[in-house]
Formats: sequence, C-alpha cells, structure tokens
Amino acid sequence: MTEGRKIVLILEYNGANYAGFQYQKGQPTVQEKLEEAIYRLTGEKIRIIGASRTDSGVHALGQVVSFRTGSRLPKEAFVRGLNYHLPRDIAVREAYAVAEPVNIRSEAISREYHYHILNRTTPSPLRSGFSYLVREVLDADLMNEACRMLLGEHDFTSFASSLTGTRLKSGVRKVYQAEVTREKELVVFKMVANSFLPHQVRSTVGSLIRVGLRKMSTEDFYSIIGAKKPGLAGPLVPARGLFLIRVNYPYSFEDK
Amino acid sequence: MTEGRKIVLILEYNGANYAGFQYQKGQPTVQEKLEEAIYRLTGEKIRIIGASRTDSGVHALGQVVSFRTGSRLPKEAFVRGLNYHLPRDIAVREAYAVAEPVNIRSEAISREYHYHILNRTTPSPLRSGFSYLVREVLDADLMNEACRMLLGEHDFTSFASSLTGTRLKSGVRKVYQAEVTREKELVVFKMVANSFLPHQVRSTVGSLIRVGLRKMSTEDFYSIIGAKKPGLAGPLVPARGLFLIRVNYPYSFEDK
Repeated sequence: MTEGRKIVLILEYNGANYAGFQYQKGQPTVQEKLEEAIYRLTGEKIRIIGASRTDSGVHALGQVVSFRTGSRLPKEAFVRGLNYHLPRDIAVREAYAVAEPVNIRSEAISREYHYHILNRTTPSPLRSGFSYLVREVLDADLMNEACRMLLGEHDFTSFASSLTGTRLKSGVRKVYQAEVTREKELVVFKMVANSFLPHQVRSTVGSLIRVGLRKMSTEDFYSIIGAKKPGLAGPLVPARGLFLIRVNYPYSFEDK
Repeated sequence: MTEGRKIVLILEYNGANYAGFQYQKGQPTVQEKLEEAIYRLTGEKIRIIGASRTDSGVHALGQVVSFRTGSRLPKEAFVRGLNYHLPRDIAVREAYAVAEPVNIRSEAISREYHYHILNRTTPSPLRSGFSYLVREVLDADLMNEACRMLLGEHDFTSFASSLTGTRLKSGVRKVYQAEVTREKELVVFKMVANSFLPHQVRSTVGSLIRVGLRKMSTEDFYSIIGAKKPGLAGPLVPARGLFLIRVNYPYSFEDK
C-alpha cells in the first residue's frame, strides 16, 4: 500500500440525521458516510480524521477532515466526486492536497462554534431544525456581559458533564472570543477557543439562558467557572442550535 | 349557526411537504392542515381564506388568513391552541379578533416576496431546502440594474406561463420594490407589488439569473416586459428558494 498524498477537506453538514461526526458501530455518522463516499470514489478503504468531534445532531459549516490516499485524482475531483457520492445533508466545500506533513487535530489553533437561540413566543417552522426556542424574553446584553468572564485561560471543568468531567485530564482551555448578540428574534452565542470540553458550548448556553432570564446573576455565573465542579453548568441545550463554524490553523492548506 | 367573530392569523410555514397553500383534493395543503387544526380546537368545520396563494413548495414567514368562528376563545388561545394541533412545519405567529369587516384578500395593499439564490460552486446541506444553487458567478449589480425596470405599473403578461397567461383578465401589476442584493454567497431578490401573476417571481428570477450570468443583456430583459407574451420570461426557478415575507394593509389588525 502506497503512503500517497494527504487530502484535507472542508465539510458542511446538517447534523439532524447523524449520531455525530465520529464513527459509532450501528449508528449513522458523518465519518461513516464520508468514508463510504471516498471508497466509492477511489476504491480505497481508509480512515479519516476530523478536527472537531461534533455531537449527535450538531451542524457544521466548516468541519476539517484529512486522510491519506493513493489516488492521483486532482483535488477538484475530490470536491465534485465526493459530493456526487455523499448524501444531500453532507457536502465537501473545499479540498486541498497537502505535500508537507500536517496534523489537522493537534495543529488547529482554535475552533469557532455558534449557538442559535430563537427568542419569540411561537415556534418557527423555518428555523426549528437550526435553533432552540426560548419563549420568555432574554436579556442578550446581560448574557453578553456574563460571558466576558469566559475570556482567557480558565479551568472549565464545571462545564463538563458529571460523567465526562471526572475523566478529564485537564479542564483548562483558552477562550479567544465569547459573545452574545441579538438580531431581532435571533440570539446568537459565538465562542472561539483553542479546544472545547465535551458539551462545553451547550452547557455554557444553558447557563447563559438562565442569566438572560434573570434566574441567575452574572456573579453566580462567574462562580460556576470558579467552582470547577463537573455538571454544575447547564442545563444542556439541544444540539440542533449548535454549529461548528470553522477550525483555524496557523497556515493556509493552499500553501502546504 | 352563529356569524361569530372574524379571526385573522399570521402564519409561518415550510412549504416543502405541501402542494401549496390552497386546498386541493387528495394533496396535502397548508389550508387543509389549518382547517383541521381549527376543527380540533373549536369543533367547527370552516373554510379559511388566504391573502396569497403560495405554490407547491413555497415557504411563508407572514401569510395572512382569515375565517369566521362562533368560538369565544380569546385570540391568544388561537395561537397556542392551533400551534398545538398543527404539524411542526406550520405555525401561527399572531392572531387578531377583528370586529369591523375586513377582507384580507381585496384590502391588501401589497405582498412582499424574497427569492434566495445560493451562488457558490458546492451544494449546501444547511441551505439546500431554502435556496436555489447557481454555481457560476452571478453579477448581482447587473441583476439589480435590470430589475429596476420592473418598478411601477406594467403589463407583466410575459412573466406568466404560456398556459395561465392567455387566461389572465389583465397582466397589469404595480411594483413598489424590486432589488437584488448580495451578502457573501447569498443573492437575494426582493419584490413588493400590489399583487402577482401566478409564478411571476420565479419567472422573473429565472430571467434575472440569465442577466447575472451575462447570457442576456439588461436591454433584452427590458424587452421581455415590453413584449407582453406569456411564457417569454424564465425559466422558472425552483419553489424552495421562494418566501412570502408579508402582506401589507392600510390598517393594523390590532385596531380593527
């Protein structure tokens, strides 16, 4: 078997019909569908690596994956060819053939996630698959104020679940951006960090919603961070409002 | 049977699973689902009227419907109660109980429609149900220039299909807004008119795309309007990119 080239893909997917990105026996996953499409295109049974393990139901606009292939297909053929074989809820947006060694997981500087809260009294048939409905009025300014405390390097153990929190090597993560903005009925939480604990964004949003409804003070929100107690933040909001926007690298794949 | 009150509803729906707004025997329609929900809520078999007949697959953010009811339920109960009985792809956003006679169809001053074109080379799993993919680069400025000619009162017979165009009483409509804007990959066509011919927005967008791809000059686009020949504009773009945004009245339902 030839070592071949390394291909990096940028993926968009609707997570609704998948048990997350990562392969799970007997469950439909994005990884499984992509590996099937690669097999149909190249005849190779290969294992891909994803930069971010999105949970069941989470969407992505810019997931990054990589794999080695012996195929000599031009990179454009990976876009067209894989999109031909992929189901309609997964698509390749860009493909790069990289000559230098890259590790898309360890070399990622940061990941950006957005969470969409629809803040109105009635359900939305057009947005329900892509947002979480909160019927009571949220104070987005207060939520924004609270989440400023997330910026910088902190131990985010309180934002992991009781189960995974105790198994963490370290809860320390570095947060580069954390903000809440409102555009009419849509309240969006944006967070950029070097990496995330499992469920971190969704438990953060759960706590921020409590702040926005004035069921929790910003001081109480700050004290959650300080407590470093697994399961303290939350409750976990639904996956359908969460989007992996992009993964950032200190280089362009185009130059590799 | 009591004459009762008149109720006006503002509806949002995802048109994907419906053969349009208006009742059709043996086909799922928005009207049928809403009448079923009203029956479950009030026990009354009534016929509703819609302000705009959206086609099969067309979405709505602000469709307006009205009906008479003998029910004494408060208007808020029509929002909550109908949303409880409606399928998840149809929702009531607002309800008004109007005392004065109103005719939501004849008294509407204008209707606003948006059409979403996704202009990029790869399909979008997150937007495919709500836009039409055009892979070649569109010149949105040129499209915007062309559609300025639509403003004002014109005979739009060329934008009706060969079949319906010959049966029209008149193709004259008054256009209050027609513009094309681009936000990154999304090219949006917005049109406000007193009313629309069947398929008018979709055939207009079909012609505008030809302008945007420089397959048709703006002068040729102007001459389509002048020709008044059914079936001349187009081709018809898919319904999934079309949204009925709102219907405008010279009064507020709140005051009626």
